[in-house]
Amino acid sequence: MLRTHTCGELRKENIGETVELSGWVQRIRDKGSLIWIDLRDRYGITQLIIEGDKADPKLLSTVKSLGREYVIGVKGTVIERVSKNSNIPTGDIEISPENIHIHNASETPPFTIDDDTDGGEDLRMKYRYIDLRRNAVKEKLLLRHTLARLTRAYLDGQQFIEVETPVLIKSTPEGARDFVVPSRMNKGEFYALPQSPQTFKQLLMVSGFDRYYQIVKCFRDEDLRADRQPEFTQIDCEMSFVTQEDILNTFEGLTKSLFKEVKNIELPDFPRMSYDDAMRQYGSDKPDIRFEMKFIDLSEAGKGHGFNVFDQSEVILGICVKGCAEYTRKQIDSITDWVKRPQIGAKGMVYVKFNEDGSVKSSVDKFYNEETLSEWGKIGSTEKGDLMLILSGDKGATQKALGELRLYMADLLELRNPNEFKPLWVVDFPMLEWDEETARFYAMHHPFTSPKPEDLPLLESNPGAIRANAYDLVINGVEIGGGSIRIHDRNVQEKVYHPWFY
Amino acid sequence: MLRTHTCGELRKENIGETVELSGWVQRIRDKGSLIWIDLRDRYGITQLIIEGDKADPKLLSTVKSLGREYVIGVKGTVIERVSKNSNIPTGDIEISPENIHIHNASETPPFTIDDDTDGGEDLRMKYRYIDLRRNAVKEKLLLRHTLARLTRAYLDGQQFIEVETPVLIKSTPEGARDFVVPSRMNKGEFYALPQSPQTFKQLLMVSGFDRYYQIVKCFRDEDLRADRQPEFTQIDCEMSFVTQEDILNTFEGLTKSLFKEVKNIELPDFPRMSYDDAMRQYGSDKPDIRFEMKFIDLSEAGKGHGFNVFDQSEVILGICVKGCAEYTRKQIDSITDWVKRPQIGAKGMVYVKFNEDGSVKSSVDKFYNEETLSEWGKIGSTEKGDLMLILSGDKGATQKALGELRLYMADLLELRNPNEFKPLWVVDFPMLEWDEETARFYAMHHPFTSPKPEDLPLLESNPGAIRANAYDLVINGVEIGGGSIRIHDRNVQEKVYHPWFY
Repeated sequence: MLRTHTCGELRKENIGETVELSGWVQRIRDKGSLIWIDLRDRYGITQLIIEGDKADPKLLSTVKSLGREYVIGVKGTVIERVSKNSNIPTGDIEISPENIHIHNASETPPFTIDDDTDGGEDLRMKYRYIDLRRNAVKEKLLLRHTLARLTRAYLDGQQFIEVETPVLIKSTPEGARDFVVPSRMNKGEFYALPQSPQTFKQLLMVSGFDRYYQIVKCFRDEDLRADRQPEFTQIDCEMSFVTQEDILNTFEGLTKSLFKEVKNIELPDFPRMSYDDAMRQYGSDKPDIRFEMKFIDLSEAGKGHGFNVFDQSEVILGICVKGCAEYTRKQIDSITDWVKRPQIGAKGMVYVKFNEDGSVKSSVDKFYNEETLSEWGKIGSTEKGDLMLILSGDKGATQKALGELRLYMADLLELRNPNEFKPLWVVDFPMLEWDEETARFYAMHHPFTSPKPEDLPLLESNPGAIRANAYDLVINGVEIGGGSIRIHDRNVQEKVYHPWFY
Repeated sequence: MLRTHTCGELRKENIGETVELSGWVQRIRDKGSLIWIDLRDRYGITQLIIEGDKADPKLLSTVKSLGREYVIGVKGTVIERVSKNSNIPTGDIEISPENIHIHNASETPPFTIDDDTDGGEDLRMKYRYIDLRRNAVKEKLLLRHTLARLTRAYLDGQQFIEVETPVLIKSTPEGARDFVVPSRMNKGEFYALPQSPQTFKQLLMVSGFDRYYQIVKCFRDEDLRADRQPEFTQIDCEMSFVTQEDILNTFEGLTKSLFKEVKNIELPDFPRMSYDDAMRQYGSDKPDIRFEMKFIDLSEAGKGHGFNVFDQSEVILGICVKGCAEYTRKQIDSITDWVKRPQIGAKGMVYVKFNEDGSVKSSVDKFYNEETLSEWGKIGSTEKGDLMLILSGDKGATQKALGELRLYMADLLELRNPNEFKPLWVVDFPMLEWDEETARFYAMHHPFTSPKPEDLPLLESNPGAIRANAYDLVINGVEIGGGSIRIHDRNVQEKVYHPWFY
């Protein structure tokens, strides 16, 4: 080894020992008579101290030649620091070097290796191998390793076995575009990269493996988004002879155990919400329930007062923004502009201010008197000082837009505390979703998802209303995972392969 | 859960309990008055017993409809077996079912789900999901899971961290052909699938991750061989600030720990052998050292007796096959035929029999008298009753052919005990190998492999003699792993990028 210890290891107890360290020069402070060098490796930082007027000239000349990010090896004695640094675990000691060897010189790095670096994103991506030296980035990879380790430990403990499935496979469409790999052996033919190990894990169940998992790369040739990359990793699982309840318990257990071990947070049992309730109350199948601001349904109360926009809307939905009645015209205009952006797609927004003085003022005073508006307030349980924001139109689009607005307002009001974690099971997803463009139903999850047995009779009469044994795990408005109970019965599968699929 | 217990779980202590099991029908024995069903899942086999003349007619009719590999759920009472089966852990009990539910019927399987199946390889590959139900195959996947688990535990314990590296990468030639993936975003451009995470792990070291590992898929577009598939998995590692000695110790430790935990075998410290010694003594850089049969060098003793074949050979090499002097002409002819196959490529073979009666007889008696042949025997430390087999020709080709013959003879004599494990480090690999076709040197490992510092001066005079800090781990003649110390010094790297590389 080119070291006897790491840079995070030495303590008071080591004082007097001769040690060897290797690492990167993080910082040099040269006061002439005293020179300090912070030596860094993955494990920490250890300070070296050189007495400028007493040091061996050869050592001193090496020290003088050093720059940031030089990689060096040091042999020296552990001594007690005069002024200790309680911020770092090695802060009680420093090294008085007798020899410094330059493993490798470094050019001046393109940005500083600090938590608050001076490097912009482009620069940091270009020099990714240097960016990875920063604690903030390094810690993310270490966390990922820890999460993988704990996930495997939990699943191993539950008798899951990890099975590696092939990467060069036959195309199995999953809704996204496949990456393809031309075959040299079979001209004109292609492998596909797996969008998920779906087929393989079901075959493993057919083979009797009972409980399978894999931390596995998946590939989808889709355009980049913040939460979507062409290659991504998932914790892939499958269980035999279980009900939905068993699955929810197993993976709620995994999630709790990860939060406990990594963040020392004891999560209470996860609430469950039906897809219908989620859409109705939050306009989203992945609601952030760290804050309330549930939808207020004004579809009845808003109609019949001569306001055409509302009268012609399928739904009229509002949210109550607590304590914001005093928003200025400018603030409200800015919110209106936000909801009218094409990404959100609202045509306009109505507000009602429930002022502290008891008066009620809205952008539709022409159509609604104070009594009617106060009625709306009652429906929404508003209080004095609250602001109600209202969107209307087609049900799906309005739910979605108001759901976005709800999150936007919560961000403005800092209601989304990043240190608070509110997991939620969303259950009873519809089995099918209607596609306007092709005017047909598609499987919302996949066509092997089992319907709730009691909903099966709806196959002919109202397929859109069939609920599936499908569920998502949502934390703070982010979909963390999801799955379904597969159909194992040939008869049910044949029924589900219904003509409206084709 | 569709069960209260697995099929491997119930014991005497459970007698009297009402339980539910789910699994596959392994076997049905119908004696009319008594029907036994072996129910199988991943965890074991539990016997069901139905009294043909007392059972509920509905239950009996279900039982009568069952066939092999039906998937069923059973509810019943645990009872004590009359005749116990000590071969299986559940052999003390059986289940008296009150209800059997058919989860899924099965067609007659194309082969039996037994350790000794009646299915040929093609059939088993076609119905892989059924073949995976067989213990022999299932155990292999379970073992693989265990090995991965133990490997991670060992490396985690040594402060390695597992980092996932990308799969869609820029081509980094490694000697084999890349699989390529056309990019939809950038017409005419391609990703490559990694032949190994080589570049990424070195970048991780540059980033200061210090100890990296990954159990990772690699891809090489090569023709299939028994030990070579287009996609394969390796335990990929990299360490910073270490010497070759540290690496050997770390991975010798890993290997020992796997043998101990999986097979309860305590391996002694692994011997080390230089590449030169391995080639000279065994004609292979991955010698099987479970048996001796080292090469006997007759290059001097064999020449100058008028036997043109030997006189014109670069080397004359033999092996002593213990106790086989009585091989018949037919046996020896068959061996000669074997070495003359194109895969081995010898032009012929000479034998010398050191008979029990003290006489010596060879296939080249015309050129060598008994005295000379006895001299050869002394060089090879042969004893009465031994057979010496000799090949000659160019050094490399002869070493290789005789190495193959050595393994062939050991197989014939059953000297390669599959339950014996003899690991070996082969060290001091040459840095370069000469390619006749292109008449130039190539890096034997890769051009970042560090040369032994003391050999660096040979760069100009005798590059083929430069030894590298490169090593392979060999067990029983199979290369299990290998690696090298990378060059970290720019000057050395520039020297190694020598003109003879281009």
